[in-house]
Amino acid sequence: MTRPDQQPANPDPSPDALSLQERASLTSGGDTWHTTAVPGVRALTLADGPHGIRRQAEGSGDALGLDVSVPATCFPPAVTLGSSWDAGLARRVGAALAREASALGADVVLGPGVNIKRSPLCGRNFEYFSEDPHLTGAMGAAVVTGIQSLGIGACVKHFAANNQETDRMRISADVDERTLREIYLAAFEHIVRTADPAMVMCSYNKINGVHASQNRWLLTEVLREEWGFGGAVVSDWGAVNDRVAALAAGLDLEMPPTGTDQEIVDAVRSGRLAEEDVTRAAGRVIALARRAGTAERFTGWDVDAHHELAREAARASAVLLKNDGDVLPLDPRAGQRVAVIGELARTPRYQGHGSSHVVPTRLDNAWDALTGGFGPAATLDFAAGYRLDGEPDAGLAQEAVAAAERADVALVFLGLPDQAESEGFDRAGIDLPDVQTGLLREIAGACGRVVVVLANGGVVSVAEWRDDVAAILEAWLPGQAGGAAIADLLLGACSPSGRLTETIPLRLRDVPSYLHFPGADGHVVYGEGRYVGYRHHDTLGTEVAYPFGHGLGYTRFEYSGLDARETAPNEWAVEVTVTNVGERAGDEVVQLYVAFDEEAPTRPRHELRGFAKVGLEPGEGTRVRFTLGGRDIARWSPARGEWAIDPGRFTVEVGASSRDIRARAELATPGDGHVAVLGRMSTLGEWLDHPVGGPVLKGLLRGAPGAAPSSPALRALARGVPLAKFTTFGIGLTAESIDRLIEAVREAEARG
Amino acid sequence: MTRPDQQPANPDPSPDALSLQERASLTSGGDTWHTTAVPGVRALTLADGPHGIRRQAEGSGDALGLDVSVPATCFPPAVTLGSSWDAGLARRVGAALAREASALGADVVLGPGVNIKRSPLCGRNFEYFSEDPHLTGAMGAAVVTGIQSLGIGACVKHFAANNQETDRMRISADVDERTLREIYLAAFEHIVRTADPAMVMCSYNKINGVHASQNRWLLTEVLREEWGFGGAVVSDWGAVNDRVAALAAGLDLEMPPTGTDQEIVDAVRSGRLAEEDVTRAAGRVIALARRAGTAERFTGWDVDAHHELAREAARASAVLLKNDGDVLPLDPRAGQRVAVIGELARTPRYQGHGSSHVVPTRLDNAWDALTGGFGPAATLDFAAGYRLDGEPDAGLAQEAVAAAERADVALVFLGLPDQAESEGFDRAGIDLPDVQTGLLREIAGACGRVVVVLANGGVVSVAEWRDDVAAILEAWLPGQAGGAAIADLLLGACSPSGRLTETIPLRLRDVPSYLHFPGADGHVVYGEGRYVGYRHHDTLGTEVAYPFGHGLGYTRFEYSGLDARETAPNEWAVEVTVTNVGERAGDEVVQLYVAFDEEAPTRPRHELRGFAKVGLEPGEGTRVRFTLGGRDIARWSPARGEWAIDPGRFTVEVGASSRDIRARAELATPGDGHVAVLGRMSTLGEWLDHPVGGPVLKGLLRGAPGAAPSSPALRALARGVPLAKFTTFGIGLTAESIDRLIEAVREAEARG
Repeated sequence: MTRPDQQPANPDPSPDALSLQERASLTSGGDTWHTTAVPGVRALTLADGPHGIRRQAEGSGDALGLDVSVPATCFPPAVTLGSSWDAGLARRVGAALAREASALGADVVLGPGVNIKRSPLCGRNFEYFSEDPHLTGAMGAAVVTGIQSLGIGACVKHFAANNQETDRMRISADVDERTLREIYLAAFEHIVRTADPAMVMCSYNKINGVHASQNRWLLTEVLREEWGFGGAVVSDWGAVNDRVAALAAGLDLEMPPTGTDQEIVDAVRSGRLAEEDVTRAAGRVIALARRAGTAERFTGWDVDAHHELAREAARASAVLLKNDGDVLPLDPRAGQRVAVIGELARTPRYQGHGSSHVVPTRLDNAWDALTGGFGPAATLDFAAGYRLDGEPDAGLAQEAVAAAERADVALVFLGLPDQAESEGFDRAGIDLPDVQTGLLREIAGACGRVVVVLANGGVVSVAEWRDDVAAILEAWLPGQAGGAAIADLLLGACSPSGRLTETIPLRLRDVPSYLHFPGADGHVVYGEGRYVGYRHHDTLGTEVAYPFGHGLGYTRFEYSGLDARETAPNEWAVEVTVTNVGERAGDEVVQLYVAFDEEAPTRPRHELRGFAKVGLEPGEGTRVRFTLGGRDIARWSPARGEWAIDPGRFTVEVGASSRDIRARAELATPGDGHVAVLGRMSTLGEWLDHPVGGPVLKGLLRGAPGAAPSSPALRALARGVPLAKFTTFGIGLTAESIDRLIEAVREAEARG
Repeated sequence: MTRPDQQPANPDPSPDALSLQERASLTSGGDTWHTTAVPGVRALTLADGPHGIRRQAEGSGDALGLDVSVPATCFPPAVTLGSSWDAGLARRVGAALAREASALGADVVLGPGVNIKRSPLCGRNFEYFSEDPHLTGAMGAAVVTGIQSLGIGACVKHFAANNQETDRMRISADVDERTLREIYLAAFEHIVRTADPAMVMCSYNKINGVHASQNRWLLTEVLREEWGFGGAVVSDWGAVNDRVAALAAGLDLEMPPTGTDQEIVDAVRSGRLAEEDVTRAAGRVIALARRAGTAERFTGWDVDAHHELAREAARASAVLLKNDGDVLPLDPRAGQRVAVIGELARTPRYQGHGSSHVVPTRLDNAWDALTGGFGPAATLDFAAGYRLDGEPDAGLAQEAVAAAERADVALVFLGLPDQAESEGFDRAGIDLPDVQTGLLREIAGACGRVVVVLANGGVVSVAEWRDDVAAILEAWLPGQAGGAAIADLLLGACSPSGRLTETIPLRLRDVPSYLHFPGADGHVVYGEGRYVGYRHHDTLGTEVAYPFGHGLGYTRFEYSGLDARETAPNEWAVEVTVTNVGERAGDEVVQLYVAFDEEAPTRPRHELRGFAKVGLEPGEGTRVRFTLGGRDIARWSPARGEWAIDPGRFTVEVGASSRDIRARAELATPGDGHVAVLGRMSTLGEWLDHPVGGPVLKGLLRGAPGAAPSSPALRALARGVPLAKFTTFGIGLTAESIDRLIEAVREAEARG
């Protein structure tokens, strides 16, 4: 929201002061990266940049400039930053992005991306935070808050249900509303409600048959009318298919321009489009410009400091999956022979492909960082081991195995090659390249202490080889300072503190969307519904390689003194003490889940509803506090069209992963007070169980012929029959007597 | 269809000769079990009866008469008859049903039920054949053909997607069209296209939000216009919610009457309803009466012969799940002590509850049959063991264990109690009652040779106890002659030849619909899609207790000489030799699956497309022949709105269960010749791969700036972009040049 005291002396015009032509032109870009300037309104510059600013270099070749841009800090992509589970860190990264955007002349950063990881195959997963909407919402809101702390706009994307790249511009994501609300819209909702993003970017795909860019339900009813979004909606680049329909649905700004402003003018003149739709959209773009006008402008940034922040973020985000026998950290002062194996140690994979691709200001690699990090007593050997293009190379492998044979410990850098994952296409599998796993087998045979360091944006399978190695550090795509960060962690400069934001399955076929991804014939049916990631695995008890929330460090934490109590109707305070009982300083990510233990599951077994990252010295303890509200235990009710809280008991779980719950407390809710409205199509069972209707109906039925079925099975059958049907099935009810019943209930309820 | 030579001398009137009031009255019942008589058209009598005729006794209490009817043969319900995999047997049972219907004055038998078993929890599964639509369609068509062989009408039900009882009168089955077409409509389609049923009964539930009774797409577009159904559509009893809407949608006959004929007349007069809708529906009811008029009328039937047919059907349908050490068959002449344990051996459970409940003409029980079947050398003890109401009874259990301790072999009869499954409600679990499994554990400890005989309509779990027993005979609900049939099988009078028509899962949570059943808030989302039963398990490789198609006998069969060859475009002949290589006569059910071995599954791993039951003497062999057509390898294409055959290879599998494939052959199809129509929203990849469009586009792009992206990832990204989008992304295309391209392709295709 623009604050009046920040408005420039000469305020931008109201849209009413502009001609229809001018207003129409405001609803489309001036060029690929700018809005249109009209008298009194300057053109705004939009820059790609979930994890680094991508400003196209002047005169570069392709229209989108995906491969050529001016240097900026490449922070860790969302897959990595999300794994830090550190909202404060995400805010600081957001602020640094804003500083660079400002210095590079951009007004809006086109990020963060907050789509849910429905399948590990989605090619763009590296740009997203998690399989969990709570975590995604919290981290996304932190990035938005950070970016906007300097007056630069953030643009939350891709709204919505853009969970795959296959056929992304045409596919219809067919998703039931409960799943949409609870999983795919929830992070957007949280960010809109709490972080006031300047923009939302609608996605390419259709949702239940309607393009997001033309989806009035999505862009107007949900986003604005329900959530109160006050910013501007921009199309993903090229997402508009019918500009008139898009404007009417609630899209404000088409990017890039298609030269169709005259169509808008004509549509208004012919009555096909309401002029107020154009005026409203133009007004929102003007408001965006006004808001951008309040931003402090910077001319540059401290390149070293931002690189150091990128390093801190990479360090906080790597996930130590296993560490048998405490093989890590390595002592940099010890006399030892270390084999550093893998081309990726020298040629790092640190970001993904597509619109988010950043030209970094500098680039660390792990080999250099390790050679600088080990003391003179250690001997380091490097062997590339494999080619990044996946072609077998027996010579490279032989050399690496020889190095491993000589070594006390082998640090093996594996990962996905540059071309394996990108915006624009999905992966076909989750395995590492064969040349890498083959090499790893040989190295494990040659050296007893093998540490694997992974570089990948989408999850890779570890089940086939994890038992052969002592430790696995999942570094994700760690940004431009990743090499140094990895060395910091391997050498114990700090303890790993990243946690998995998505389940690592045993096999691809264990993924709940496996049979329903990526669809065909223009439709992808979200068959797994709300059971995404750990919601599926933990409800069914499926074995996984590593569960959601998992991550080790170099110390251990104990949980004690869980206290959960009601503080107001449908509000609870939860506190737990976490103590570092190990020998080193470290960070713990305390996770709060709300659980429903149902005989037959009607909702996920448990869901993340809070988390806190706390840093503790050895022996130190702290009290961690959470607040739970009604929404945290609510479900979306499609029938009521609102969030519903059913009365009953639920469990608060506190732990170190979705499968490492350390303490539980049971709580109860009175529900949301909703009382069903009885009608003709309410079943006999619903009538009998109703606090008001039950007694009224029983009074009428007392002694009626056929009102007491002869067997339990017939009674159960009858309970499921709507009352109206008994007019023909006969327990003495008529249409009129049912109407009188309904009236009697209404009167009884009115009396209180 | 009525054959002219069978029309009565004084033909029924054409509907045009009737008043609107008379026509309206024809579209609703005269009373609960009769249509309305009008001048020249007699009232027809409809009788419940998928597996036995239920004619309500005069003056019985409740309106539906579910508990009181005149005696008729209780044949095995569909769960059982389906397990015979014997279409000839099903036809004979159908003819016997018709004979009894005729003798009891009924014109139409309200069956068979051909809904797919989506979940083992569905309370009405005992009335349905299978989790597989091919098997369901074949068995259902056989029953229809049998019933109609005597001129009695069959009424296929419940159309459609009525796969649960929970909230059945209001719930919306939310199912994507491909799943509907391939799974839930396919059996109906087969029966309508091949067996000409007189009636189809629409279901209570909604399909994608629209009540089946008011679903024009279902009742008119699909059923009549696509499949060519020529009979009458009747509502399930009480399924009409808006009679005007129902008539307009294609419903012909509302049952039972709601006294709303005047509403129809008024709706026509006010223009809300087209008079031709009423005339058409009335005409169909008249045609039904005309068709019924051709039926031969019988005054009685051979009660003994029908009982014997029921016994044959029960014998052919029991599934021998395991038989370790060939413990079965028991030698009736041997000197041995046999403990017959279980109240169900004396008080048989032989049918389910609800509208299908039949008052049998007589009732066998296994205890009597066994005492008659064993020779004088054997000693038989009976012990009830447990109470049917599930209450623990230590005395009964003790007595049974004592009997087992003394016995050489214990025959333990277990099953679901009478009230556990019924029309009108679903089960909550698949376990046997605790008192039964507890008893079984004790008996297994007391006797080394335990044979379990199961009586149940819905699948029960066997995983917890199957390792404790030597043999399991799943007798299902075997009808009134089940007791004798079970004795026949246990004593080796014939070899078991039933096969599973549904998977027995290890655990309820392994069922693909587990997380999506029975829905809430008025909606059940069929999230598992086409992956129902073995389609799910065999695609994912899930461990199951017993797979679809499984069943043992007392002999063994070998498969040899598989020959699969093309006989016409998209038509293949498949032949295989099956030989009885065991010591006894027996029946084998040869199963034919069509398989697609895909890296990433886009369809079930394999699907049943043929079966044949063959009886063979020891040493005898026979050649079994199947024909496959295009439809057998087709998929429903929602985009094209038709069945599609993609060119490529597929595999024919022949075997004894879905997991016991004995022979495979690879075949190829040229596809259905469909060539995609290229347009503006066709992707670059679709254009480049198109036989005509590819060369045209490549010609245009040769040398265009930006047409050859710089990296493989960018090339892959570009392939997914619709051509129209390149007008802004720039590879030199404009809207006009794209239109010219499309025109060029059209011309090239027209040329040839």
